[in-house]
Amino acid sequence: MEKKDILNLLESLQKGETSQQEVAEQLSRPGLDSLGYAVIDTDREGRTGIPEVIYSAGKTPQQVAEIAARMNERGIPVLATRAGPEVYEVLREKIPGAVYHEQAKAIVYQEDKPELTKSYIALVSAGTSDMPVLEEAAITAEFLGNRVERISDVGVAGIHRLFDRIDLIRGASVIIVVAGMEGALASVVGGMVDKPVIGIPCSTGYGANFGGVSALLSMLNSCASGVSVVNIDNGFGAACQAHLINRLVEPSG
Amino acid sequence: MEKKDILNLLESLQKGETSQQEVAEQLSRPGLDSLGYAVIDTDREGRTGIPEVIYSAGKTPQQVAEIAARMNERGIPVLATRAGPEVYEVLREKIPGAVYHEQAKAIVYQEDKPELTKSYIALVSAGTSDMPVLEEAAITAEFLGNRVERISDVGVAGIHRLFDRIDLIRGASVIIVVAGMEGALASVVGGMVDKPVIGIPCSTGYGANFGGVSALLSMLNSCASGVSVVNIDNGFGAACQAHLINRLVEPSG
Amino acid sequence: MEKKDILNLLESLQKGETSQQEVAEQLSRPGLDSLGYAVIDTDREGRTGIPEVIYSAGKTPQQVAEIAARMNERGIPVLATRAGPEVYEVLREKIPGAVYHEQAKAIVYQEDKPELTKSYIALVSAGTSDMPVLEEAAITAEFLGNRVERISDVGVAGIHRLFDRIDLIRGASVIIVVAGMEGALASVVGGMVDKPVIGIPCSTGYGANFGGVSALLSMLNSCASGVSVVNIDNGFGAACQAHLINRLVEPSG
Amino acid sequence: MEKKDILNLLESLQKGETSQQEVAEQLSRPGLDSLGYAVIDTDREGRTGIPEVIYSAGKTPQQVAEIAARMNERGIPVLATRAGPEVYEVLREKIPGAVYHEQAKAIVYQEDKPELTKSYIALVSAGTSDMPVLEEAAITAEFLGNRVERISDVGVAGIHRLFDRIDLIRGASVIIVVAGMEGALASVVGGMVDKPVIGIPCSTGYGANFGGVSALLSMLNSCASGVSVVNIDNGFGAACQAHLINRLVEPSG
Amino acid sequence: MEKKDILNLLESLQKGETSQQEVAEQLSRPGLDSLGYAVIDTDREGRTGIPEVIYSAGKTPQQVAEIAARMNERGIPVLATRAGPEVYEVLREKIPGAVYHEQAKAIVYQEDKPELTKSYIALVSAGTSDMPVLEEAAITAEFLGNRVERISDVGVAGIHRLFDRIDLIRGASVIIVVAGMEGALASVVGGMVDKPVIGIPCSTGYGANFGGVSALLSMLNSCASGVSVVNIDNGFGAACQAHLINRLVEPSG
Amino acid sequence: MEKKDILNLLESLQKGETSQQEVAEQLSRPGLDSLGYAVIDTDREGRTGIPEVIYSAGKTPQQVAEIAARMNERGIPVLATRAGPEVYEVLREKIPGAVYHEQAKAIVYQEDKPELTKSYIALVSAGTSDMPVLEEAAITAEFLGNRVERISDVGVAGIHRLFDRIDLIRGASVIIVVAGMEGALASVVGGMVDKPVIGIPCSTGYGANFGGVSALLSMLNSCASGVSVVNIDNGFGAACQAHLINRLVEPSG
Amino acid sequence: MEKKDILNLLESLQKGETSQQEVAEQLSRPGLDSLGYAVIDTDREGRTGIPEVIYSAGKTPQQVAEIAARMNERGIPVLATRAGPEVYEVLREKIPGAVYHEQAKAIVYQEDKPELTKSYIALVSAGTSDMPVLEEAAITAEFLGNRVERISDVGVAGIHRLFDRIDLIRGASVIIVVAGMEGALASVVGGMVDKPVIGIPCSTGYGANFGGVSALLSMLNSCASGVSVVNIDNGFGAACQAHLINRLVEPSG
Amino acid sequence: MEKKDILNLLESLQKGETSQQEVAEQLSRPGLDSLGYAVIDTDREGRTGIPEVIYSAGKTPQQVAEIAARMNERGIPVLATRAGPEVYEVLREKIPGAVYHEQAKAIVYQEDKPELTKSYIALVSAGTSDMPVLEEAAITAEFLGNRVERISDVGVAGIHRLFDRIDLIRGASVIIVVAGMEGALASVVGGMVDKPVIGIPCSTGYGANFGGVSALLSMLNSCASGVSVVNIDNGFGAACQAHLINRLVEPSG
Repeated sequence: MEKKDILNLLESLQKGETSQQEVAEQLSRPGLDSLGYAVIDTDREGRTGIPEVIYSAGKTPQQVAEIAARMNERGIPVLATRAGPEVYEVLREKIPGAVYHEQAKAIVYQEDKPELTKSYIALVSAGTSDMPVLEEAAITAEFLGNRVERISDVGVAGIHRLFDRIDLIRGASVIIVVAGMEGALASVVGGMVDKPVIGIPCSTGYGANFGGVSALLSMLNSCASGVSVVNIDNGFGAACQAHLINRLVEPSG
Repeated sequence: MEKKDILNLLESLQKGETSQQEVAEQLSRPGLDSLGYAVIDTDREGRTGIPEVIYSAGKTPQQVAEIAARMNERGIPVLATRAGPEVYEVLREKIPGAVYHEQAKAIVYQEDKPELTKSYIALVSAGTSDMPVLEEAAITAEFLGNRVERISDVGVAGIHRLFDRIDLIRGASVIIVVAGMEGALASVVGGMVDKPVIGIPCSTGYGANFGGVSALLSMLNSCASGVSVVNIDNGFGAACQAHLINRLVEPSG
Repeated sequence: MEKKDILNLLESLQKGETSQQEVAEQLSRPGLDSLGYAVIDTDREGRTGIPEVIYSAGKTPQQVAEIAARMNERGIPVLATRAGPEVYEVLREKIPGAVYHEQAKAIVYQEDKPELTKSYIALVSAGTSDMPVLEEAAITAEFLGNRVERISDVGVAGIHRLFDRIDLIRGASVIIVVAGMEGALASVVGGMVDKPVIGIPCSTGYGANFGGVSALLSMLNSCASGVSVVNIDNGFGAACQAHLINRLVEPSG
Repeated sequence: MEKKDILNLLESLQKGETSQQEVAEQLSRPGLDSLGYAVIDTDREGRTGIPEVIYSAGKTPQQVAEIAARMNERGIPVLATRAGPEVYEVLREKIPGAVYHEQAKAIVYQEDKPELTKSYIALVSAGTSDMPVLEEAAITAEFLGNRVERISDVGVAGIHRLFDRIDLIRGASVIIVVAGMEGALASVVGGMVDKPVIGIPCSTGYGANFGGVSALLSMLNSCASGVSVVNIDNGFGAACQAHLINRLVEPSG
Repeated sequence: MEKKDILNLLESLQKGETSQQEVAEQLSRPGLDSLGYAVIDTDREGRTGIPEVIYSAGKTPQQVAEIAARMNERGIPVLATRAGPEVYEVLREKIPGAVYHEQAKAIVYQEDKPELTKSYIALVSAGTSDMPVLEEAAITAEFLGNRVERISDVGVAGIHRLFDRIDLIRGASVIIVVAGMEGALASVVGGMVDKPVIGIPCSTGYGANFGGVSALLSMLNSCASGVSVVNIDNGFGAACQAHLINRLVEPSG
Repeated sequence: MEKKDILNLLESLQKGETSQQEVAEQLSRPGLDSLGYAVIDTDREGRTGIPEVIYSAGKTPQQVAEIAARMNERGIPVLATRAGPEVYEVLREKIPGAVYHEQAKAIVYQEDKPELTKSYIALVSAGTSDMPVLEEAAITAEFLGNRVERISDVGVAGIHRLFDRIDLIRGASVIIVVAGMEGALASVVGGMVDKPVIGIPCSTGYGANFGGVSALLSMLNSCASGVSVVNIDNGFGAACQAHLINRLVEPSG
Repeated sequence: MEKKDILNLLESLQKGETSQQEVAEQLSRPGLDSLGYAVIDTDREGRTGIPEVIYSAGKTPQQVAEIAARMNERGIPVLATRAGPEVYEVLREKIPGAVYHEQAKAIVYQEDKPELTKSYIALVSAGTSDMPVLEEAAITAEFLGNRVERISDVGVAGIHRLFDRIDLIRGASVIIVVAGMEGALASVVGGMVDKPVIGIPCSTGYGANFGGVSALLSMLNSCASGVSVVNIDNGFGAACQAHLINRLVEPSG
Repeated sequence: MEKKDILNLLESLQKGETSQQEVAEQLSRPGLDSLGYAVIDTDREGRTGIPEVIYSAGKTPQQVAEIAARMNERGIPVLATRAGPEVYEVLREKIPGAVYHEQAKAIVYQEDKPELTKSYIALVSAGTSDMPVLEEAAITAEFLGNRVERISDVGVAGIHRLFDRIDLIRGASVIIVVAGMEGALASVVGGMVDKPVIGIPCSTGYGANFGGVSALLSMLNSCASGVSVVNIDNGFGAACQAHLINRLVEPSG
């Protein structure tokens, strides 16, 4: 429970609008709401800066839709990641206004779109095949209230494509680099900017790419010193961390 | 070369203090200084926010010392990481004021200590055995001008030790979590704060720990959404990224 | 062959109901029954505390059904794990009373349901996606006569969800923790209870999760000292060991 | 803090022996004691059934000795694992009565030896080369108050050696199996007993043994259903879990 | 070309039945027959004791059928392994007498069935799920002229099933052990017989089985000294080596 | 932009055919052409000797077709690799003359076929199953203007098949060896020729082949000294390097 | 206990030389002799064709010497493998006639050298660096009574070296191939002989050799069909299996 | 045996200087010379363009020296790689003129230094720590008669250092790129030149670098199309292939 909610509660007690009994119950209740198979963490945003988000893989469309509906009832904005069209079919019966982002495989429902920050997150990708991951990151970052700039297909095989866009990249408060194959782009960008770089290794590639392991190791061993890494294809996680960083620049974001 | 240096140069040209010839030469010279086996990247700080740092492993003590001396001559502050005492022995003959941090295996020489930021980086470790890595991160972060707070030995086997210190952790602008074995601490901290968390997996442990791989995978797969990761035992890299983040809060730092 | 069966046999000999010849033959026959492609281990329960169970993967539905029918004829209760609906279709023609547990992918047939123990096995899972594995463990444990308590979706990203249920967990005689991703839940639970904890790493997750390897390594490297581990997604195996432990508390179970 | 300690404290308050102030302070203090680089978890035994134990690897002998001394001052029995003779040299200056178990690489100091349980833990090893791990498990189990029975060098290459000792193994309340190479012993024992079996894969072997990975995988994939596994060479962890199981049989142990 | 064929050729030259020209051509022709995309090694049997066999995976049904037809034309008996029913459909149009072994996924055509040896190869498998691999080995061994004995489902979880059949196993000239999961059966058999044991690790299993790697490592690290190993699921290769060994006992086989 | 294009541009300026404005714009434009999701590297051939090629995996058929059409408009010859028939269906609507090479999974469109070199690249494969990879290399090499010679199915199990073709292999300027399973062919060829050998490990095989890792490691560890390696199944990459080598012999090629 | 020993025992009973009591005791004693930490498997030769052999790694020199002495007392010939000179120093005090084979790191003591077989085992190695493994195999094979022929340094980089010795190889009853790096020699030999080939992958090499894994995978994936494999560097195991095969040819060996 | 040697031999026969007997013997002798444990491949240079070279690891200094001496006697120039100073100590007693290259760990003896080619091999390294590998490549290339140009410490963290030297790199006939950590340099160089690039992944780095695996995977997955790879740290192998390529440009080299 957020401090301001507690203060409101106490105020309503002192005004006599709420009984002591009720206040005690609400205060002692941990911030969660159970559906049996799932327990919604209702104060996650207050605690971690990021609200509970539904990871759809491994859940039935019905389960995703029910969790989304319950969150919506409680006024929590809804983001469901890794959701195929079949999930969206079921979910939009419960939340008609929900929007499906096909490339990102993400479902979003926000009653009021947040005003975006002025400072922005740069999303840089090496090739066209990395776009689904870039989009998951972009949709997540916007959902959390951040302005984003997409800079696609600037991999190191034709490095002048990157130099052509470098000023836009340098102007960001934090940079996400999405790259498969050998993942060299993260190091090259990391060596050219003075902002934190978050690498997302992609499973793009084949053979000794091992489903993204090659890019993952590249980014972990980056010779550029300001680079950190998230899990393979984890656009969502990278966007969350970028959001927490961008908030430091523009706290109202 | 930084913009302000260029402006100074042009000014001195217009004042007649420098000839056109000299200016042209200085401007066309890339920002580097060669020792044959090593090429110092003299404008790295301007470009990336972090000056060139000497990674001592795989270099002879003599090489480390020579590079350090050259950097010192050019007014670049010196940090040599992964440096054993035998490196320090040779280096301090060339730079008598250099200080050796034994646990961190780091050599530092700064003519003028930077004033530390008010905002701070929290350094949280799971166990006593993780201290060398925590210290490498701490020394690096301080070298770059950041205030740090160390919170040691608060691993999840006795999770109340963590809760006891949680306010200090929450107050930081960015948090570094150092953990070996199963590396669960990064997820637990990540689930309790609203600041970016950078995990450093440690090689502490044995058997199926595989030299830190267990903790690395744990952190990459963290169920907490604001966690990113650097290479195993890479205190230096984590501190660099934390510095770039902390700079966003307090740009003069 | 169980001791009591032997005693019965000897009694019938002394009563003249069975010839010496027959008794000798029965006693010298190892406890097995062959179908050619499969050899049923008829005294496994007597020997190991757990009856022969049919692992359906890699067997044809016809084979599973035949083995089940033969076991049923000999009075051995039937549990078939990793069984898809197509296996159930064939099997229930031979054993009409068999019950299919869809989420657990398990088929059960017990003429007389065992009376459940009073002491119980706690089944704790990190997320909704881990439910199929939790259910395999739960169905197996109940099949073997144990009371179970399910505590779902209490992963460490919102650790207060776990604290909310900790008393129920502490009251168990043995605890099974099911977790994918980074598997940190096993360590956290292990640090809070004084009962044996058995971890089941789940294949839930993606990328550097490597099909459950991340959670497996986490649990093997647990910094909490009372944790052991079974194979990835092995709900059955964890339940068997938990049953053997719970039997120590309540031997009649 | 244990319940009985709290009751004592309250009693002394009511008797007027302690002031309210002091009681409040003691009660609000979390169960920990800090040395700066290490935080002793003073109520771990109450919480988890196993007291804080010192893992010596990665700590200096001086650090191990200081932690041990502090624990001793607070009346906590001392067990330091993975301790070389050089650690013992330093430690026994602070705790003269401490005993060194060379093969187990363990240091023990208990003012009052606990009375051992009647029920026992069977420790079964495949070969002579597995003895250091078996001894770490044995010393730990005895330290925690359990009777143990050692059954060495009964690997499956000469399986009749195992059958010769099977009754002693079957009589245990829980069985630890220590095996390197292909680790088959755990499955074979698991198929012959009705008690929980905890496997310790050993790094004994060479080549495709990969430092114990071969035995680890064997045990995780055991076709016997009551087998769980701990980390490679982790005699300590296996003993802890066996202790928690044996306590269920004989709670006063 | 075999020595005896050469001698025949030379004899026919001296008898004037063949011209010098023809003899020269036949002698200089390497033992191969090309289809463009495939080169049939026509004297492989003479050279290696095993005729050319068609590995169907990665070839189109049409290619398999053409190679088989060409071999048949040259009087080479046909064995096609890893062949699905769709391959058989195409092949039997060209060789109507070809027989399909469904479980083994093998197609066989031999104009004259070889007389089987008296000495035999024992084929021992751990579980019913290992049968396809056992059958590939059995069909191959019979194709090469060896008597085989199948001993199925005698895994170590119920080790008395193995003891029940041990005399039949001991009587073989060479033993093939097929086992998935932890593969312990190879070591146990290897410790009980004085004949060479060839292990076939199976991909049977799940999770940390890693598609047969667990059983592979087990068998490579066998503590029994007369065990060697072939590739995962490689029934064909094991049968070839067993055949070469059995030939030593009964050369006319 | 290539030097000769620049000279042409300057000439047309001096002839008054182009304005200064236009020339400046063309010269300052980096060599790229953006479609939003893809940025075509228009001067890659001038810079690297190999034009931009479309890697179709991970792109939609629509995207591949659009990129191809744009390249075609700019006069760049089109090669799309890893393209299934569904890609070809869409692409040939835009470029009717495009040719589909089914086995190679490659689409080619060149308005003017290049005249092939006299010196040639030898393409040697171990087995029929390796043909798709060999064909990808062959089509690519021909697309780039090289004569190629295919030598199929000469693996080391019947090494005389290789010796039969060795003169054709030795006559090449560079040799590509395609092999799956144990990949021994690269070493054997490498030990018999005095030309550079490029190995392509194939995913052909099963079990401990690990999708081509076995052949990859073999080739990397080749005891023959003139062997280098490209990624698993990477016929395209091997052909590119072979082309760059063959160009050294016959620069006009 | 061997059948002939049992018959002798019964004979001496009937002659009155031994009491019934003594006979019963001897017969009921399993074939083992315990030293506490080690249990000697005294009838292993009768059961498996290979006597108990001491694997010295992981044992103290004192332990090796004691086990050897006990075996010697019981008339069992002594072979200790993986024994450094420091083991030999201690052992020869107890068995003065013991011989040390330095390159093989093997200690041998046989009161009566066995007469060697006429049929022989061919030991083929790829390079000089593989000699220690070849020697371990050779010494073991001779210890077990087999004639051996060593063919060294005939790796595939200069394949004519192999052809020069092929007749000697073909004449053997079984062939052991020792190779590091890419291990191609096993496939090449396997394709040229009609005898069983046992591959020993060696740890010789560096980098992507991964301590012998490269050669191991090569041999497991051999395209030649009569090849099986033992553990990396396991000269002892290969010799044991070769011995069991050679015995089939010449049973009195 | 080289063609010219054969011609000489035949000439001396016709001149009567050699008997038919002698000529026949010499011609029938394969090109090898045996020392028992080693077989020198005397015509390797004629066959493969690279003479036999001594790989010293795994050989005793005495063995290396004897092989070198024998080669020297036969007029073969001597290169011994991976040779520590202790090898050089022994070798130079036999070949006093031999030169030791400490950083490269290579011993060279050539009676007549070859005249170097005009075309050159560019050797590009990412950092100072990669120098030993670069030097092994350089010494080998020069030994084989190639001019080399060394370009050190131009890694992508400061990519302008590379651009500063790009013309020298582009002028080479073939380029070797040496890089550890993430190995991105190979891709970046590959995207900027039109000559074949051979990558040498280095073991430089730590943690998730896994002894060079990270750089190896990066280079294998390079998005630049003309890059091939040799084993980790294999300066020798890269130089051999570069030599074979450079010979195509300047055959007399």
